[in-house]
Amino acid sequence: MIGEQIKAELISIGDELLIGQTINTNAAWLGEQLNAIGIRVNRTVVISDDKNEIVAALNEASERSHIIIMTGGLGPTKDDITKHTLCGYFNTDLVINDEALKRITDFFERRGLPMLEVNRQQAAVPAACTVIHNYKGTACGMWFERGDRVFISMPGVPYEMKGMMEEEVFGKLAAFYNRPVIRHRTILTTGVGESFLANELAEWEKMLEEKKIALAYLPSPGMVKLRMSSYGEVGRDVESDFKLCEAELHRMVGEHIYGYDKDTLQEIVGVQLRALDGTLAVAESCTGGTLARMLTSVPGASDYLIGGVIAYNNDIKTDLLSVDNELIKRHNVVSSQVAEAMAIGARRRFNSDWAIATTGVAGPSGGTETHPVGLIYVAVAGPDSCKSLELRLGKRRESNMDMASFAGLNLLRKEILGQKAHL
Amino acid sequence: MIGEQIKAELISIGDELLIGQTINTNAAWLGEQLNAIGIRVNRTVVISDDKNEIVAALNEASERSHIIIMTGGLGPTKDDITKHTLCGYFNTDLVINDEALKRITDFFERRGLPMLEVNRQQAAVPAACTVIHNYKGTACGMWFERGDRVFISMPGVPYEMKGMMEEEVFGKLAAFYNRPVIRHRTILTTGVGESFLANELAEWEKMLEEKKIALAYLPSPGMVKLRMSSYGEVGRDVESDFKLCEAELHRMVGEHIYGYDKDTLQEIVGVQLRALDGTLAVAESCTGGTLARMLTSVPGASDYLIGGVIAYNNDIKTDLLSVDNELIKRHNVVSSQVAEAMAIGARRRFNSDWAIATTGVAGPSGGTETHPVGLIYVAVAGPDSCKSLELRLGKRRESNMDMASFAGLNLLRKEILGQKAHL
Repeated sequence: MIGEQIKAELISIGDELLIGQTINTNAAWLGEQLNAIGIRVNRTVVISDDKNEIVAALNEASERSHIIIMTGGLGPTKDDITKHTLCGYFNTDLVINDEALKRITDFFERRGLPMLEVNRQQAAVPAACTVIHNYKGTACGMWFERGDRVFISMPGVPYEMKGMMEEEVFGKLAAFYNRPVIRHRTILTTGVGESFLANELAEWEKMLEEKKIALAYLPSPGMVKLRMSSYGEVGRDVESDFKLCEAELHRMVGEHIYGYDKDTLQEIVGVQLRALDGTLAVAESCTGGTLARMLTSVPGASDYLIGGVIAYNNDIKTDLLSVDNELIKRHNVVSSQVAEAMAIGARRRFNSDWAIATTGVAGPSGGTETHPVGLIYVAVAGPDSCKSLELRLGKRRESNMDMASFAGLNLLRKEILGQKAHL
Repeated sequence: MIGEQIKAELISIGDELLIGQTINTNAAWLGEQLNAIGIRVNRTVVISDDKNEIVAALNEASERSHIIIMTGGLGPTKDDITKHTLCGYFNTDLVINDEALKRITDFFERRGLPMLEVNRQQAAVPAACTVIHNYKGTACGMWFERGDRVFISMPGVPYEMKGMMEEEVFGKLAAFYNRPVIRHRTILTTGVGESFLANELAEWEKMLEEKKIALAYLPSPGMVKLRMSSYGEVGRDVESDFKLCEAELHRMVGEHIYGYDKDTLQEIVGVQLRALDGTLAVAESCTGGTLARMLTSVPGASDYLIGGVIAYNNDIKTDLLSVDNELIKRHNVVSSQVAEAMAIGARRRFNSDWAIATTGVAGPSGGTETHPVGLIYVAVAGPDSCKSLELRLGKRRESNMDMASFAGLNLLRKEILGQKAHL
């Protein structure tokens, strides 16, 4: 099969996806993982728990793609019909798989839970398949082969599916279809819009074209990601081409680049703080815990994050953060002065090297003429200085909380960089 | 068109979706909104930014569905080819739309940004379409009709797309196809697993079948949602059937029901606190801001949430929350005693009626034999009592933070209910 692009198609099964009760995160994860082992997802379809829909989707997918991965439709309850449909499709019958039955029995025994007949039935699988065992739940995965096509059926619960794919399926697929790897490199920018960036980078895009590197601009709130992709090429050349293009991009718009690939600002800031042996505290008003949650989502954050205060009420700002009540009266609680005083107060209260503070009108209501919804100040206090930033965002509460937290982290990143440059 | 089920198909365009760099939240949102106006999404497909793929998807979708909604592929940069493909598909040419050009010019002027040629080109649309104007961005939406089929092309940026759908498209679709409404009712349960619930509810499911109500079990971390659906029926009967079934469910497993439909625990707790004119504070160790963020994501949370402390470091627990250092040494910082002391300390520090506290090992590493990853204590202190709960969760950090926060909110909900029952 070498030389041919191996294509995968994902079939996600479930009315909850079609009516939007559940977001299809499984497809995104599978796309990313398959891509990394050189298998290109050329289509994802979402269909309902319906026999005819499943059969039609399987027929269409197997005409277009080598690998068909179904997720969902394998729970213990009655809305699940996938297994019976697969028996019909592969002209086989359900049989109890002894190993699966033992695994399911153990699963319930270990948890001290009663095992029900519906759970026992989860050990029944089509005789024609190879069982993919599930050590985090009760539904079995199934692997079918038909010529050079592979059909895989997986449970829809994300962490069960992911565990099974990682432990068994990706390895099996990589062995079945031996492929050159698709490579991506993503450069993360903040502070400039997509069209401005595209205009600045017209020359750079020509350089990419010559090197047969595809480029995509991926805007999301507060940032634009630039993704370079090279399909089907082998090994080192692509990596060094990426490096050349990256260096050129740095020369052109370096001040807007904050990271690469899956970097997050909270990880970058964590790396910076570790390198300085520095500590951090947060004082959040309008972001209400968002900044703390972003920081603490990074494993090991307790090495540099001391703690924080959610100062939702003004009394907390004066009591816990020593913000002068007069300052609040004079400048309004939504002001650069109060943001800076909060950061300085948090730094002192937590005895940390750095502190980030936020204050603003998150919305969707509560704004005034002088202090409209979306007006937010973020401040960073450090060993030598205190700096603040005014943001004028939109009306959407959660997005404002996220973007202000992002801006606070980016301000800290720049302040640490500036301090290092200064030493 | 009355009497026939109107079906929609969603075509999401973009390699970033296929390689999993972006999660397809647009499809979920569209599914939910269309459903509410009686239009059933029978399929969602994700394809790449490729002319042939787009044309093939359009052909297939228009055979199956009345309404075809494309999202993505309309940004100002070079990876976007959708508009040219649509010209070919509808046998028409690009023309500058004057109103769109004026809107885009205004867009840049208002923001004081330079307008580039790529932005001007965004005002070019196929002559055969009706333009759907975008007041939050620069890309135009497009509406095409062919017989009883409607084709809609929308930008992929979620808040632009949502604004345009809400302001123009849903109304236009509802007028074009006048439909009976699909109704759903979702009951939210916590504390029991899917298979246990299914077993308990066998009789109840028969009742639903008789009333032609479809049921789906939707498990997610910490909860199971039960979704009742009735397709294509008109008006009141469905609602009163839902009510009957709901009452019966309450009789059977009422203690596990915490809410309905889109209720979130943080909203339910907010309603409870408002009703009591009560206030709340949080003291978070292992959840690191998650609980605060959940609470503050609800508009108006400042009416009852005073604030909180992220007590990541033990010194903060003793300093800001007055937890006795001896207590920490005697019982370990991950203990019900420390969780309760944190809650009592937070209640005092913030002078609030209630407080929630968390302490535990979020993971993925850092566990010991006696205090493994996933061992978390949550506590709630109130006017008359203090209660705590031991959780034994998994190894995934963010999921542990989310589930412990959820458990803390649920404990508060129950404590407030208990207090009310006691009065």
